[in-house]
Amino acid sequence: MPSIATITFGHSPTSYSTCLALHPLSSSFYSSSAATIRVPLISPTGKPNCLIRLSSASRMRGPVVRCAVIEKENPETERPDTFLRDSDGENGSMSSSTSVRARFEKMIRDAQDSVCQALEKADGVGKFKEDVWSRPGGGGGISRVLQDGAVWEKAGVNVSVVYGVMPPEAYRAAKAAASDQKPGPVPFFAAGISSVLHPKNPFAPTLHFNYRYFETDAPKDSPGAPKQWWFGGGTDLTPAYIFEEDVKHFHSVQKAACDKFDPSFYPRFKKWCDDYFYIKHRGERRGLGGIFFDDLNEYDQEMLLSFATECANSVVSAYIPIIEKRKNLPFTEQHKAWQQLRRGRYVEFNLVYDRGTTFGLKTGGRIESILVSLPLTARWEYDHKPEEGTEEWKLLDACINPKDWI
Amino acid sequence: MPSIATITFGHSPTSYSTCLALHPLSSSFYSSSAATIRVPLISPTGKPNCLIRLSSASRMRGPVVRCAVIEKENPETERPDTFLRDSDGENGSMSSSTSVRARFEKMIRDAQDSVCQALEKADGVGKFKEDVWSRPGGGGGISRVLQDGAVWEKAGVNVSVVYGVMPPEAYRAAKAAASDQKPGPVPFFAAGISSVLHPKNPFAPTLHFNYRYFETDAPKDSPGAPKQWWFGGGTDLTPAYIFEEDVKHFHSVQKAACDKFDPSFYPRFKKWCDDYFYIKHRGERRGLGGIFFDDLNEYDQEMLLSFATECANSVVSAYIPIIEKRKNLPFTEQHKAWQQLRRGRYVEFNLVYDRGTTFGLKTGGRIESILVSLPLTARWEYDHKPEEGTEEWKLLDACINPKDWI
Repeated sequence: MPSIATITFGHSPTSYSTCLALHPLSSSFYSSSAATIRVPLISPTGKPNCLIRLSSASRMRGPVVRCAVIEKENPETERPDTFLRDSDGENGSMSSSTSVRARFEKMIRDAQDSVCQALEKADGVGKFKEDVWSRPGGGGGISRVLQDGAVWEKAGVNVSVVYGVMPPEAYRAAKAAASDQKPGPVPFFAAGISSVLHPKNPFAPTLHFNYRYFETDAPKDSPGAPKQWWFGGGTDLTPAYIFEEDVKHFHSVQKAACDKFDPSFYPRFKKWCDDYFYIKHRGERRGLGGIFFDDLNEYDQEMLLSFATECANSVVSAYIPIIEKRKNLPFTEQHKAWQQLRRGRYVEFNLVYDRGTTFGLKTGGRIESILVSLPLTARWEYDHKPEEGTEEWKLLDACINPKDWI
Repeated sequence: MPSIATITFGHSPTSYSTCLALHPLSSSFYSSSAATIRVPLISPTGKPNCLIRLSSASRMRGPVVRCAVIEKENPETERPDTFLRDSDGENGSMSSSTSVRARFEKMIRDAQDSVCQALEKADGVGKFKEDVWSRPGGGGGISRVLQDGAVWEKAGVNVSVVYGVMPPEAYRAAKAAASDQKPGPVPFFAAGISSVLHPKNPFAPTLHFNYRYFETDAPKDSPGAPKQWWFGGGTDLTPAYIFEEDVKHFHSVQKAACDKFDPSFYPRFKKWCDDYFYIKHRGERRGLGGIFFDDLNEYDQEMLLSFATECANSVVSAYIPIIEKRKNLPFTEQHKAWQQLRRGRYVEFNLVYDRGTTFGLKTGGRIESILVSLPLTARWEYDHKPEEGTEEWKLLDACINPKDWI
């Protein structure tokens, strides 16, 4: 388990002219290994203007940060066919219609369409509101939010494409350059889909999923540095009450998606999920897990693209049947209050620990896209402790002691 | 304006055996200057086990942290007469009954009593629930919470006394020791009162106040290092709707308390408050301010003790008259929803920026005491923008552009 570190830096508002961009994917575009956290940064000028260097040889040592100036996004009235730069097709070894970048963008946009369609159908009343935005230097995104529907209290499904420049110090591969050559900034590409779905009914679970692809160009002045890419993502379930058949179904779909590619994936990514969504100050997880992976590039690229596609395409079958079973169950005020308390935990995790959210908030970005992950409503009671043996206690126990659901 | 930096470090739950203690004062016991953030740490063994070193010569450079193991607090069935160590009277230049430590503890406990009494009277129905706790090595606290009363949605008033040991690197005065002497750990004492009061009625404002006193012993192996002390604190108002007469009254009481001591205090501490309670990612303040100060020791100690006492004793007269005027005003669901949105901002500030909360959460401490500052309920709507000219817009505008209320 890699050391996780987040940093913030404050200064007077008037002097605030720096930011770095990880949004609107709430789980962000950076990737961690045991010794580093790499953060891609956006610079319209292409200047090396940011560095996240994690002194993580000791887990107690902290990060050093320099920062980036990014372009503000512009609202668009229409969805473009692609957020890719024209040059992506020319420069790539494949045409833009078949490059991994292009196929990943198509995949996440298709997934956004199919998930939103399934969510609207399950809701029956609510409709998604869409915001499209782009950046002059390339890239952009589509944010869709369904708020206060019949089934969904708040459901957000965002896709985005980001072009940026990473300082060479943040780029592992740049170190492969000849030592007498000072490596230059490393252009990168990132694309992803990110979604958090909060139903109204306290027996219907919250779902989060996020799949992202990251790629660097070979830097021009670091000819020895290879082109790098990696995948990240996951899907996880956060109920307020446990229906064992629901949790089993959810995890089984995740396992089935994983097993198509590698038998080690499900156990490894299930544990990674339990470790990542940990609310340290509570000693409990946000929910009942699922799968989570990051920095994944030690497999065939085509295989991982297919794997991410399979995962994204499994969201509807993993989740919607649970929603259909639970969306109309009768409930009491007490059930609702417990759901709201768990929503409070969701807020705590996202604002305090989630890497994409915390980086995004403190460093600029489209705030509304980042915070669409927060529930419409949440609750904090002083010193609330469910009575042992109750349904509320069982949920809490499963969040404290992760279980094997299959 | 000093650079503000917070850090977190994550590691697997099982290996988590380190923490540092700043709770339960939500604004914490550390003190910042332009170049350093000093964090007092608690070690029952007295070993130098923690260091916060802020490389803030550049605002973009980050902190380096080592950490402390602290004692867990024990619940007590009765309030002790004092949380001070017996030795505090013997070792001090004054007897324990007249030392600044003793007088500050008495002041905050008296303030806790009088504020709680006034809050219960204003509520008419709700009663405070009390938790008393202590640490074997000395120190302890009293947490009082009134939840779901007639007037108060959630009201917390906490006092605490902490004995700890600060590593010499974190202690400015230690540097005054002869350079051939390696300074040892610096014992410190800290005491404070901290309170957040969230009313139900959307026209009745939230109040926060916090007053704290910090003192170091002269370290035995650093004879050249003088004993140090400083005061911190403030009182600030967070309404969802502006009644100008209320805000004027509130600020006038703060100014009157300040003016008794120094004409520069109110303008200086008013600005400090506006700067501190800034939600950077929103570009707005949490509320309409008041006063805030930290690291204050450049005045006579007796004068500052009197000043902190005056401020704490002004809470009831600054706040209760406003509550009496607003607690029974009729309101609509829309008013309530706007209050809930502002409560969401309160949560964002406290979980993302507040130094005491973020340090406390990430490093151990009595979570329930730390998070009692969160409202009972809060709300997040996607891309909510009040219409220009409305009462909601006026509040937001005043949070974005701080005003002189007097």
